[in-house]
Amino acid sequence: MNDEYYMRFALNLANKVSGQTSPNPPVGAVVVKNGEIIGFGAHLRAGEAHAEVHALQMAGEKAKDATIYVTLEPCSHFGKTPPCADLIIEMGIKRTVIAVTDPNEKVSGQGIEKLRNAGIEVELGILQSEAEQVNEVFFHYTKTKTPYVTIKSAVSLDGKTATVNGESKWITGEEARMDVHEYRHKHDAILVGVNTVIADNPSLTTRLPNGGKNPLRIIVDTNLRTPLEAKVIQDQEADTWIFVGKNVTEQRMDSFKGKNQVNVIQLDDEQVNINKLLKFLGNKGVMSLFVEGGAEINGSFLEGNHINQLILYMAPKLIGGKRAPTAFAGNGLQSIAEAFALDIKQVELINEDIRIIAVPRKDDKDVYRNN
Amino acid sequence: MNDEYYMRFALNLANKVSGQTSPNPPVGAVVVKNGEIIGFGAHLRAGEAHAEVHALQMAGEKAKDATIYVTLEPCSHFGKTPPCADLIIEMGIKRTVIAVTDPNEKVSGQGIEKLRNAGIEVELGILQSEAEQVNEVFFHYTKTKTPYVTIKSAVSLDGKTATVNGESKWITGEEARMDVHEYRHKHDAILVGVNTVIADNPSLTTRLPNGGKNPLRIIVDTNLRTPLEAKVIQDQEADTWIFVGKNVTEQRMDSFKGKNQVNVIQLDDEQVNINKLLKFLGNKGVMSLFVEGGAEINGSFLEGNHINQLILYMAPKLIGGKRAPTAFAGNGLQSIAEAFALDIKQVELINEDIRIIAVPRKDDKDVYRNN
Repeated sequence: MNDEYYMRFALNLANKVSGQTSPNPPVGAVVVKNGEIIGFGAHLRAGEAHAEVHALQMAGEKAKDATIYVTLEPCSHFGKTPPCADLIIEMGIKRTVIAVTDPNEKVSGQGIEKLRNAGIEVELGILQSEAEQVNEVFFHYTKTKTPYVTIKSAVSLDGKTATVNGESKWITGEEARMDVHEYRHKHDAILVGVNTVIADNPSLTTRLPNGGKNPLRIIVDTNLRTPLEAKVIQDQEADTWIFVGKNVTEQRMDSFKGKNQVNVIQLDDEQVNINKLLKFLGNKGVMSLFVEGGAEINGSFLEGNHINQLILYMAPKLIGGKRAPTAFAGNGLQSIAEAFALDIKQVELINEDIRIIAVPRKDDKDVYRNN
Repeated sequence: MNDEYYMRFALNLANKVSGQTSPNPPVGAVVVKNGEIIGFGAHLRAGEAHAEVHALQMAGEKAKDATIYVTLEPCSHFGKTPPCADLIIEMGIKRTVIAVTDPNEKVSGQGIEKLRNAGIEVELGILQSEAEQVNEVFFHYTKTKTPYVTIKSAVSLDGKTATVNGESKWITGEEARMDVHEYRHKHDAILVGVNTVIADNPSLTTRLPNGGKNPLRIIVDTNLRTPLEAKVIQDQEADTWIFVGKNVTEQRMDSFKGKNQVNVIQLDDEQVNINKLLKFLGNKGVMSLFVEGGAEINGSFLEGNHINQLILYMAPKLIGGKRAPTAFAGNGLQSIAEAFALDIKQVELINEDIRIIAVPRKDDKDVYRNN
């Protein structure tokens, strides 16, 4: 067994708790001595023990002269819990292997420095890109102070989200729709346009067999057309924030006052500006945003370059129709060279449907443009 | 090793020559004695030796008391070559394992009967559904007397075949485009609508590093708008058949007369009727048709229920735009329940693009309709 083997185990642990640690990142830790795993743990919930604490507790006195594998640089400052770097030193750890440094520039490297000053051997960068992926939401939020945006859409094989008559229930199968609820559970907030509220009256809650966390519900509604009787206004299952444009009257907004868990937020442009909306959400601590459309909303996120991840469910059916709606409307990008390039991260069958996960291409290579 | 093991090898052999045996089916054969493979072969080209002949030649005298595995029932009649059943008897084969019977009802079972009458043990149905897939073009053609229709399209992740400005070169990468040429090579004919000819002036030939067979080129052109200077008219790289509606004048058609390898075929409806076109092609021995669009043509095949296979290349990019074209236009199907249901046969990455192969769902089960 080598360092990668143990770090992969630590990353697996982090992955398992992904989505339940916000605003903290998911972190895993493994303690190894003489080729034997003597402890492991993960950070389960913000405010509770860090991964290193659980792993070192499991190891107990055996931790002396052992190696600890951590997916993220151990903290060196007092937050809600004492610094993990201090605990590692105290327990007599001989070597610390870290996948990636803290993305927060103010503290990045300080945990490592503390360990090295105490005479502990520190190795950095083992499975770094995998660790960055596990922590992508946290890294993105820390660097940009805006939420990590995932666009979700469900389409037919010919890219239609509904028939020409607007019928969309249900394009995909039950398993794919359950999968969507898993994503809702893992996100801080969910966003739709007002047209979706008017057309489908969705509840936008998480409905899973074993429960789940409801995300904050965000409605983009330039002219405040959300019906007062809509489920997102009435059901009090989760908070609902409605973003409106500057021309909406106080009087119109007043009708939403006094509704429990409902907030109307007026931005200073005629149209709701997605960029400003994302900054507002970031300031409020919303780290991850799950966008469920419709087409015009998705088009705005595309044209504004606000997409961090795309999750596309494709049902094995053909709908056809020149005027049947697709997932991304708006003006669209004007040339193939301007098209928003992504990399396929995963393609999987969810029962009979296909799920495609794609992320924006990070470098400038684009094999298509020069062909 | 069991019967399935050897039959799978025979199917592999048949698969390798798929597309080069038309109008005959691709067939593989393996001869086994005492657990040892003593001969194998495939039918390489119409008019040449059948799979059994090659395999038995390789086995030679050792074939006595051996078992032969054949993906399709051995023929019992004189065609361009003598009956394989006779050869199997003559060589002293003891047992014959067959994946599937001949789909041609007139001769189905006759090869098996001949073998049994000669005292040879015959086993039927080993890997039958796999064999039907390898022979699907042949089976479809034999049963319907119309070509097996494969629709191919290249789209972005959001289902667009071009930008709002109509730019479509190139959505997918070079490897995916090469893959398309493999399919052209394997098809008897290729079909596009006249709008594609006018917009792209394609040559519709097979361009592969090691050469390849050009398919017959079919243009659906109700009003005979194909430009005389189009590549498909001028290049003489392959035959071109233009199907036109009944209102096209003799005079207009005369301008295409005398062009080498170009035929104008007038059908008796105002619009070119896809059903009649397919019957015409079937009568002319066209067993497989590769449809490369555009959107209106694809829509006609969808609405007429003329799709046997869909091959979809998806490029990892987003284009957006409410008016950007998609793969299937036309009127479209009106409700989700009416949507054309398929089963995903394969999802694969072709370099950076996704290739999805789907076939129409064969039974009536539809998990979506009752959810």
